[in-house]
Amino acid sequence: MPAPLSGITILDLTHVLAGPFCSSTLQDLGARVIKVERPGTGDDTRAFPPFRDGESAYFAALNAGKHSIALDLKAEGDRALFDRLLSRADILLENFRPGVMERLGYGWEALQARHPRLIYGAVSGFGHSGPDAGKPAYDMVVQARGGVMSITGEEGGPPVRVGASIGDIVAGMYLAQGVLAALYARERSGRGAKIDIAMLDAQIAIQEHSLAITGTTGVPPGPTGARHPTITPFSTYRAADGFFVIAAGNDAIFARLSAALDLPLAGDARFASNAARCENVHLLKRLIEAVTLQQPADHWIARLEAAGVPTGRVQDMAQAMRDRQVLARNMILPVAPRPGGPEFVAAGNPIKMTGLAEAAGRPPAPELDGDRAAILAWLDAGEP
Amino acid sequence: MPAPLSGITILDLTHVLAGPFCSSTLQDLGARVIKVERPGTGDDTRAFPPFRDGESAYFAALNAGKHSIALDLKAEGDRALFDRLLSRADILLENFRPGVMERLGYGWEALQARHPRLIYGAVSGFGHSGPDAGKPAYDMVVQARGGVMSITGEEGGPPVRVGASIGDIVAGMYLAQGVLAALYARERSGRGAKIDIAMLDAQIAIQEHSLAITGTTGVPPGPTGARHPTITPFSTYRAADGFFVIAAGNDAIFARLSAALDLPLAGDARFASNAARCENVHLLKRLIEAVTLQQPADHWIARLEAAGVPTGRVQDMAQAMRDRQVLARNMILPVAPRPGGPEFVAAGNPIKMTGLAEAAGRPPAPELDGDRAAILAWLDAGEP
Repeated sequence: MPAPLSGITILDLTHVLAGPFCSSTLQDLGARVIKVERPGTGDDTRAFPPFRDGESAYFAALNAGKHSIALDLKAEGDRALFDRLLSRADILLENFRPGVMERLGYGWEALQARHPRLIYGAVSGFGHSGPDAGKPAYDMVVQARGGVMSITGEEGGPPVRVGASIGDIVAGMYLAQGVLAALYARERSGRGAKIDIAMLDAQIAIQEHSLAITGTTGVPPGPTGARHPTITPFSTYRAADGFFVIAAGNDAIFARLSAALDLPLAGDARFASNAARCENVHLLKRLIEAVTLQQPADHWIARLEAAGVPTGRVQDMAQAMRDRQVLARNMILPVAPRPGGPEFVAAGNPIKMTGLAEAAGRPPAPELDGDRAAILAWLDAGEP
Repeated sequence: MPAPLSGITILDLTHVLAGPFCSSTLQDLGARVIKVERPGTGDDTRAFPPFRDGESAYFAALNAGKHSIALDLKAEGDRALFDRLLSRADILLENFRPGVMERLGYGWEALQARHPRLIYGAVSGFGHSGPDAGKPAYDMVVQARGGVMSITGEEGGPPVRVGASIGDIVAGMYLAQGVLAALYARERSGRGAKIDIAMLDAQIAIQEHSLAITGTTGVPPGPTGARHPTITPFSTYRAADGFFVIAAGNDAIFARLSAALDLPLAGDARFASNAARCENVHLLKRLIEAVTLQQPADHWIARLEAAGVPTGRVQDMAQAMRDRQVLARNMILPVAPRPGGPEFVAAGNPIKMTGLAEAAGRPPAPELDGDRAAILAWLDAGEP
């Protein structure tokens, strides 16, 4: 069984994060990605730290296995070449500000007339409609405006940014979903589609909890640190060597937790129900940590797992990258070096599915314009 | 042009968040979702706060427009009915612990033999393989173990949970991608596929930045509050009435920022380059806030936007739900009441694409087993 997107070609005009994250996912599903970069500098992330031997590890991970050609979409010869690529592509991805593609003569209307099967995927800060469509955005701007920062941070403290760039990443994931739906629809209709993803829209879409609370009570929730707002104990706790999570979602689990920690709490009225535990949350935390601080996290995790209490270590990225389950699932992959170049690491493909073989590693990311000859040969050969 | 997934039927055995989030997305793309619930109590989130007139707003938003039938998959009559549903379904979704479906006789191997075109999508805490496959997980457990909590929070402070439940949500999004890819592949192969998504894998997949840093330097990054770790000024700042973001990504933007704030910083050696600004980040923050504290955020945002400095307000959810761009993009929708029932709100569909009409609202979420008669009639009629 071939990979789901085998034979699909993506022309990828995107740079930095949301767009390349999307095309990486589609590549993991079997598509060929031709990265069309600006001559001279290429994708901005080629200059993003951290570096190894002068090459960006960030760029390498996000663009492993893609093919690069540098084209100036305002220059006549390059435009002719881009037109040849368009006639062979299934999908075009772009993340310019709204209107840029139209000014280049490559807006959706124009492209659809010439390439009716082409799927056109766009991702931008605020989308292609609405009063703020033209404004620039960064990950942090949409994390702030979309509300996620207002519910992230210490209780009563200032707003905190989510450490992963979910402003970009979630938008890139929605773009991938739209493109995949359009591919399926094209099999039935014979026609492509335009997908218009806004980073701000994507932030609203993931606010399941705070949107329901605000819509029902009128009062927006604030941050609650590492604690669940309405379940106790459901938070991080200190062990001798770091933090771990205890997630005791009901009275039965709480009773097992008390027993596993040798804490005589099960008969205590202050902790007899979730409501009572929520009222005495700070006292309960002190009582639990008085015990858990005496041994390392692994000791408590083994003990709580044996007692059927959901738990887990708060891991830094070095620990997560050595996690036995993460490794068993093939989620940390080497990015192969180009001849003489450095090796990097990247995340594996989280979509495990029939027809998709697990890779032992990722191919190298391209040098800027490094695949021009191969791409020209492919165009000339006229093969799929 | 019909919606991309028009005519597609999903049998959805999932509950709580990751699975229902996935089936909501597929429903937004045009699929019909039949929610198969446990008799008596149904989806756990029917009992999740907040409530209106005794009904869960959380459940209503996540399940708007789905159809509900209650089935006991261990009871003979219900199993016969479930088999009839399977023969009409394109997609089956489940989020049980690994092994549960096999014990019910509905594992992938058995289903594939009887329904070769069926697509089987599973989401679980740790996936269907690896040493920890059988363990229970909650959102917070995979946020902790996957590393995102270690990079979220105040600088030097304890780990903080991401306010949105990205442990579940990102996993549900990957499941949707796998299902969509499988639908496309089925058009060519005639055969279904199994998709196996682990919440922990999904957390690793979104760690673009911290994975690159840790893989290259060996040193995992920590939290940096609301501040970008390597660009300055790129953080939240206090205005008279709240926080807003300034994202000055290069020297030219910084010069425009200084001018817009009437701060004579452009010639100051302590702020002459991004490296210098990063060294003096705390001093620079005090200088900027000495100005910005004097006026409300809207004042500064208008001024900085006019100067071409990326900026935006840190909005709580009530503000985000009134945001003119969010409303213009149709991202806040009423959930229609059932006769005599309460109205709720839900997020709109962030995938704007050709063939998908924008809805003015969402249909109500189902009562437990509320669509049994209609589903039986549909089965009897034999229509698509």
